[in-house]
Amino acid sequence: MKFSFPLMALGLEVTMIVLFALFVEYEMDPIVIKQTNATKLPKSERFLQLYPLFQDVHVMIFVGFGFLMTFLKKYGFSSVGINLFVAALGLQWGIIVQGILHSRGQKIQIGIKSMINADFSTATVLISFGAVLGKTSPIQMLVMTILEIAAFAGNEYLVGEIFQASDIGASMTIHAFGAYFGLAVAGILYRSGLRKRHKNEESVYYSDLFAMIGTLFLWIFWPSFNSAIAEPGNKQNRAAIHTYLSLAACVLTAYAFSSLVTHRGKLNMVHIQNATLAGGVAVGTCADMDIGPFVAMIIGSTAGVVSVLGYKFLTPFFAAKLRIHDTCGVHNLHGLPGVIGGLASIVVIVMGKSKQSTIAMQAAALGSSIGTAVVGGLLTGTY
Amino acid sequence: MKFSFPLMALGLEVTMIVLFALFVEYEMDPIVIKQTNATKLPKSERFLQLYPLFQDVHVMIFVGFGFLMTFLKKYGFSSVGINLFVAALGLQWGIIVQGILHSRGQKIQIGIKSMINADFSTATVLISFGAVLGKTSPIQMLVMTILEIAAFAGNEYLVGEIFQASDIGASMTIHAFGAYFGLAVAGILYRSGLRKRHKNEESVYYSDLFAMIGTLFLWIFWPSFNSAIAEPGNKQNRAAIHTYLSLAACVLTAYAFSSLVTHRGKLNMVHIQNATLAGGVAVGTCADMDIGPFVAMIIGSTAGVVSVLGYKFLTPFFAAKLRIHDTCGVHNLHGLPGVIGGLASIVVIVMGKSKQSTIAMQAAALGSSIGTAVVGGLLTGTY
Amino acid sequence: MKFSFPLMALGLEVTMIVLFALFVEYEMDPIVIKQTNATKLPKSERFLQLYPLFQDVHVMIFVGFGFLMTFLKKYGFSSVGINLFVAALGLQWGIIVQGILHSRGQKIQIGIKSMINADFSTATVLISFGAVLGKTSPIQMLVMTILEIAAFAGNEYLVGEIFQASDIGASMTIHAFGAYFGLAVAGILYRSGLRKRHKNEESVYYSDLFAMIGTLFLWIFWPSFNSAIAEPGNKQNRAAIHTYLSLAACVLTAYAFSSLVTHRGKLNMVHIQNATLAGGVAVGTCADMDIGPFVAMIIGSTAGVVSVLGYKFLTPFFAAKLRIHDTCGVHNLHGLPGVIGGLASIVVIVMGKSKQSTIAMQAAALGSSIGTAVVGGLLTGTY
Repeated sequence: MKFSFPLMALGLEVTMIVLFALFVEYEMDPIVIKQTNATKLPKSERFLQLYPLFQDVHVMIFVGFGFLMTFLKKYGFSSVGINLFVAALGLQWGIIVQGILHSRGQKIQIGIKSMINADFSTATVLISFGAVLGKTSPIQMLVMTILEIAAFAGNEYLVGEIFQASDIGASMTIHAFGAYFGLAVAGILYRSGLRKRHKNEESVYYSDLFAMIGTLFLWIFWPSFNSAIAEPGNKQNRAAIHTYLSLAACVLTAYAFSSLVTHRGKLNMVHIQNATLAGGVAVGTCADMDIGPFVAMIIGSTAGVVSVLGYKFLTPFFAAKLRIHDTCGVHNLHGLPGVIGGLASIVVIVMGKSKQSTIAMQAAALGSSIGTAVVGGLLTGTY
Repeated sequence: MKFSFPLMALGLEVTMIVLFALFVEYEMDPIVIKQTNATKLPKSERFLQLYPLFQDVHVMIFVGFGFLMTFLKKYGFSSVGINLFVAALGLQWGIIVQGILHSRGQKIQIGIKSMINADFSTATVLISFGAVLGKTSPIQMLVMTILEIAAFAGNEYLVGEIFQASDIGASMTIHAFGAYFGLAVAGILYRSGLRKRHKNEESVYYSDLFAMIGTLFLWIFWPSFNSAIAEPGNKQNRAAIHTYLSLAACVLTAYAFSSLVTHRGKLNMVHIQNATLAGGVAVGTCADMDIGPFVAMIIGSTAGVVSVLGYKFLTPFFAAKLRIHDTCGVHNLHGLPGVIGGLASIVVIVMGKSKQSTIAMQAAALGSSIGTAVVGGLLTGTY
Repeated sequence: MKFSFPLMALGLEVTMIVLFALFVEYEMDPIVIKQTNATKLPKSERFLQLYPLFQDVHVMIFVGFGFLMTFLKKYGFSSVGINLFVAALGLQWGIIVQGILHSRGQKIQIGIKSMINADFSTATVLISFGAVLGKTSPIQMLVMTILEIAAFAGNEYLVGEIFQASDIGASMTIHAFGAYFGLAVAGILYRSGLRKRHKNEESVYYSDLFAMIGTLFLWIFWPSFNSAIAEPGNKQNRAAIHTYLSLAACVLTAYAFSSLVTHRGKLNMVHIQNATLAGGVAVGTCADMDIGPFVAMIIGSTAGVVSVLGYKFLTPFFAAKLRIHDTCGVHNLHGLPGVIGGLASIVVIVMGKSKQSTIAMQAAALGSSIGTAVVGGLLTGTY
């Protein structure tokens, strides 16, 4: 029993090293392959272009997600600690599975862009972790990391390559996916005893401040998350601007509704820590489209409202009626706003504001992301 | 009563969305306008150039200012929480008022540079917030955000466009302005009961560590604050170097004087958290001038000394004699060092070391910044 | 007695200002010197290229090292506070001593690259500080800063210019050097009373979370540490990729071995906070070599194992038998992994995978780094 976690961890790391030795090589410098693709930049310039965005995303994954979950007094250290472990394992595995799907039988090429995508792939597991925090052992997290990232990479390939859908900030493929996967696992793991353990879910003064470290670094760097792999130029520019504005608008509506639904008009800390981020999730799918700055603000405002109402009404309902206990409320921060993101892209296309994708393909992407997540989560939870 | 804060917040957000819908559009790509301005870079390169600096400033505004004020045990969460709210509202409003003043009747163009400037505009309110912390309601902060940013944008336009004065790091237009605005409001809000509430102003062990998160992120990214909108090349290079050196020199003199003025030679935590940053404020005005590295260190050293002496002698004097209660001591961190910054630029010009501006214009900029701030603060406080 | 620290600090700052006034000037713009060196980029592009990497390193030095040592409840504030003081003094002094050695009789030129190198030079003292934390006064730290950075710059010149050895991530010249210097000082300062003071070395719940802030920012930005001054293009790209992978692999083996050697299979927080970083140290020397991604993972995995075993077995042995009390266990985080880094480079050259240096020169670099550190540390400790 004592040895199962360390042996599995070591076994996985040895497996990763063998897989990397067999299948991974450095990205070729486009100077060498200039003939076939003249528009690509030399490696030193691509490094310059992508590296600062990579580091912003890296901070979000390890500090942002890690500290966001520290608000529960009892789980503070284990959230940061398991977050680091899951992400370190997940990024290695993400390079392999994403690489296999995108390399078309060639060797997997690793570069700064694949590091960004690998970090992205870990985000799905970290989101799901928020739903099952306090219900899983380290070994279960390890299994979930392997299974969820494989399912994520499959769905992402479907959405991006087969449907050719547009989801630059991954509202559907990361946020909605991660949330519904986690909820499905949480549903399987439900035990009636969980209700009594509510006292572990209290926050104390300083645990709320630690959680704000996570919130703020996610909030600050979210424009990088949504623009990191966007096409340089107008699209990347817009993705950063839209996310900046959507998040700012979201803060105002989240604070307003938090005050409205809380006893005596006070602000609820859980809303401030979580719902203020919903605008970053919801604007993701449309982030690089030519929607106009104010539309990004409308999307963000809506997400802030929906997220607060979710914490107030949906989370208790899920726990009491559906027997799904969502520890950190990821459904309100990632699930609903992710769905809003997908729906917003459909509205934008209906209104003729973007031709990057079609209604059918965006709807397929949303359905596929939620469907794969639920099925994958149920299977993982049963295991 | 309960509904006034949420309704005002929602009303303001709706107003912002309408203003953005009517007046704001994306920055045009200079490729399109190449004919008229051949020196501008294409958008993808400007993104590359400005985006990392924007993110550094963004961290300062939300994590730096937010956590700097957590040292007061009782106000920890409300400082971080209101900081986020004020900055999210302020940046939207900043884009509008700065845009109106600089767009010459055209539509307001939004890009990464306007996001940096919008973040800057929120800094003035966050500085003033440090003077009134514990004395204001969220609604008062909301009103102050709207009024102060309008006053700031007006003064900045006067200083930059009419006087053509030089203040690249905004020592005068942001730091001195924000401090004297806040002090004027604090003077109006003074109630004798505030003296008794001193027990809320105690720090505890861990609140001092939280405050150091704010201090350090401000300290680290200050070179970006002072160089973000400087002219690329020599000027931007110098702005970063000078700020780096000024802050390093400031730490040594602040520690030395903290030990000198504190009982038994101990270090005072408030000095370490605040006075170590005075060098970043004071070097701001001259940051891009060709003053020589050692002059930046002299400016920083001086600011460290003045700031510690301010905390030791001026703050108690202000509270007791002038009936101005400066909760976080912003006069010592932003007010005095901002004035030093303006004066330093005059000395530099007198000594013939820079021709970027004239003595008269720098003096006018300093006077206008303090004057507008005091008048604006008195009016805001009376409201 | 009370005046000795402030007077020394002020005296040193005045000395620094005089030295900068006499010997330091701005880096010349290569546009001016284009004739002699056509490959150099204009200053605005070099700023763009180096500045984001500089800021990442800057965060590591001030937030990373500062908070990493806060896990000891009693020393939390003094570690962050003295860390800031030592680094602010050290970076000014580092510019001078590194500048003198590399300027060949010319004036010292300051630019973003010298700021990165100055930050690097302070890392040696901050590492040594971890070994002597709780045993030294601020005055002793001040003396140690001056002496250690001088010794570091001398050894680095020997390794880089005379031996022409390869050590891009400074595993030997910074990490091993800093650790053995600190251990030598700690050996001299050993007093039997230190054993009884073990109760100061307890951590509490929230101090462990503060320490994780340090751990995570070091972990996240380590790819920048190892690639900041690498040659742009393939080498810089590889340095970032290798460090990213080595650290991820290190997390898995460190967690596995922590669970193996801890009572009932639990994870030990000191291991999580420290041993997870050993992979960044160990991969440093080979980071820019063409070793293949999986070799970086092997180096990182090995470092994680060695580091945990060092905490478990070597640190108690050092304290009990060698009378060296290593407060933060820097030998396990920087010393041993630094030696692994040097040895790995020798293995890589033996296997014919890199021609950047020779076996003899790498061995000389490792020996010189450890030798200079031990002799310098013993002399400093005796003083």
